[in-house]
Amino acid sequence: MQFAKRLDLVETSAIRELFKLLGQPGIISFAGGFPDSAMFDVEGIAQASQKVLRDAPGSALQYGATEGFMPLREELAKFMAFKGVPELDPQSLIVTTGSQQALDLVGKTLLEPGDVALVEAPTFLATIQCFKLYGPKVLGVPIDEHGVRVDVLEEMIKRHRPKIVYLVPTFGNPSGALLSLQRRLKVLELARDTQTVIVEDDPYGDLYFGEAPPPSLLALSAQVPGSREWLVHAGSLSKVLSPGLRVGWLIAPKELLAKATMCKQFSDAHTSTFAQATAAAYLQSGRMPATLNQVRAVYAKRAKTMGRCLKESLGEKISFTEPLGGLFFWARLTGANSGPTDGAAFAKSAISQGVAFVPGAPFYANDPDHATLRLSFATSDEGLIEEGIARLSKA
Amino acid sequence: MQFAKRLDLVETSAIRELFKLLGQPGIISFAGGFPDSAMFDVEGIAQASQKVLRDAPGSALQYGATEGFMPLREELAKFMAFKGVPELDPQSLIVTTGSQQALDLVGKTLLEPGDVALVEAPTFLATIQCFKLYGPKVLGVPIDEHGVRVDVLEEMIKRHRPKIVYLVPTFGNPSGALLSLQRRLKVLELARDTQTVIVEDDPYGDLYFGEAPPPSLLALSAQVPGSREWLVHAGSLSKVLSPGLRVGWLIAPKELLAKATMCKQFSDAHTSTFAQATAAAYLQSGRMPATLNQVRAVYAKRAKTMGRCLKESLGEKISFTEPLGGLFFWARLTGANSGPTDGAAFAKSAISQGVAFVPGAPFYANDPDHATLRLSFATSDEGLIEEGIARLSKA
Repeated sequence: MQFAKRLDLVETSAIRELFKLLGQPGIISFAGGFPDSAMFDVEGIAQASQKVLRDAPGSALQYGATEGFMPLREELAKFMAFKGVPELDPQSLIVTTGSQQALDLVGKTLLEPGDVALVEAPTFLATIQCFKLYGPKVLGVPIDEHGVRVDVLEEMIKRHRPKIVYLVPTFGNPSGALLSLQRRLKVLELARDTQTVIVEDDPYGDLYFGEAPPPSLLALSAQVPGSREWLVHAGSLSKVLSPGLRVGWLIAPKELLAKATMCKQFSDAHTSTFAQATAAAYLQSGRMPATLNQVRAVYAKRAKTMGRCLKESLGEKISFTEPLGGLFFWARLTGANSGPTDGAAFAKSAISQGVAFVPGAPFYANDPDHATLRLSFATSDEGLIEEGIARLSKA
Repeated sequence: MQFAKRLDLVETSAIRELFKLLGQPGIISFAGGFPDSAMFDVEGIAQASQKVLRDAPGSALQYGATEGFMPLREELAKFMAFKGVPELDPQSLIVTTGSQQALDLVGKTLLEPGDVALVEAPTFLATIQCFKLYGPKVLGVPIDEHGVRVDVLEEMIKRHRPKIVYLVPTFGNPSGALLSLQRRLKVLELARDTQTVIVEDDPYGDLYFGEAPPPSLLALSAQVPGSREWLVHAGSLSKVLSPGLRVGWLIAPKELLAKATMCKQFSDAHTSTFAQATAAAYLQSGRMPATLNQVRAVYAKRAKTMGRCLKESLGEKISFTEPLGGLFFWARLTGANSGPTDGAAFAKSAISQGVAFVPGAPFYANDPDHATLRLSFATSDEGLIEEGIARLSKA
């Protein structure tokens, strides 16, 4: 059987191979990229799902509009207002099957062979692969502890004329970095001045531990006239409510949104109406703010514990910036005190000590830094984090 | 903003324009392609969804494997056995976000510019567009009342060397035609002998009105050694249980399935686990056979009524074969007795009389027959069907 050549452009994830080892009993895993299922508001979701089947089963179980279930679009517009983007017309967002699909639709709509897409180095692995399937060259732009280096970004935009720039400005996966306010404004100016589409992926923005992060690019675009028409925003309920609902959304300029909607029609017709109606009823129930507070408090404690343990156990052998939100520590092996320098090798010896994390190299579109690693604190309580980092120091 | 050139390959559906007129009050619609929501087993689905949130909320609301929720894959393998395909390994099917996604994954995995895809003329509109986005030429193979003309298919396979042949052998949309057993076997021989991938889309196979139709191509492949490795099968719960769950599945040879799974990973990560777990619990509950019997009985009555009314009211002006299952009448305007001959023009005058249907031309990949039309009897009870056809005879 002869497959399409586009499949040659992506590799099976190196991380996948590692995940196969995770099934071993007794492993403490910092490898996942998912929220803690113990924190799902099961009661609230159960009530919401029952409500829709009681009040309007016909529409919750029937085909729906490709753009999304209108009551959910309305609730998501309100949720975006709560997140700092007021007066959003529900018609200017479509519901997607997770924000992964929002990214896929952006790729399908905009990218083709010969194009360049710029992403952060490192960035979300699935985005790199998702984009590559549409044929563009994907290049990484370096980041530091304040997020993407906008000076290098400007230079690369001018040199490569990318079709899109993909950023996770707030507590990105895997970096956990927070793009500063000043840099956010600069990104918006670059979008406008160079007429470049900026894709803001924001699944983690609500998961802050202390004070709220700077507003999203979408929220800030009002301050940079002309930037909004180059801005695409992907949101998700996965990290704050439940990934299993697969409810994400895409906000984009009108023409792009119409084309993405057409592509979605032929991708999956529409997102599960049952899941959409359940999410809408949940948001209507008013439980979300309390759920968010709860999730933030738990992750903040876990992040603090992991930071302390890493410092105590590994000291100079590892360097990192403590995250202000999200799910991840992004760290670098320094090689100090005869410590390890290769993330992948270290991951293997860590597994043999009963603790798992993900090496950082696969998160780079090109020129990987092999000394990096990603540790998630989301799914382990404080005791497990302490024990896991202790095992790590033995590895 | 510059969009990818692939978008130039598809048009906005002519049907979409028509659907905008359907919002008018009082219209009797035979235009839809969906099941009657009054027939959803709401109680059974409610019980199933509550059960999963009570028994295993963590897995129902968490991220899941791209391949699908294992208990659902197991239930779907059993359901396929019930549908005549015994001993299917659950690993040989993946769950998709509706069967639309199964088709999209087939396209993404196999089709590229320069390829040819053969489809029935007429065929499911969204398949034509879905495939076209991946660049192939899509050509129609004529059908008659026994389904696709296998003699012409053989000739076209030899002439065009298509990458895939897409068929809806059982009560296809829009034709409602049933591929005969003899032709099914011939299709399987063609697959094997010409090494051509055959995609069998089977959302309607369970909706038969009298005796069961011939076995699916997948079921029959055991009788044609060597055919199975060229056979892809897409299934769906949309027409028999609920479209809003968006639960479909894809069965394919191992290597193809692995590549489709990779593509799915970057399309939407996985199908809603909540919807999947609900579907699994529903299938486990044992209610499906009774649901199917109920749905078949209701649609059979409606189909009979529509057939009788069409004959009584339009007589010679229209020709059609009475469907033995599915949701559709496929008819042709004969022009007899000064009757209409253009489906699109007739659809417009029908709307002005308060009844809607879909003209047939858009269902052709090429060389449309403008005299055709599709009438769905699924969502109207007998009284509405009588009234609707009476209005049609006035139009």
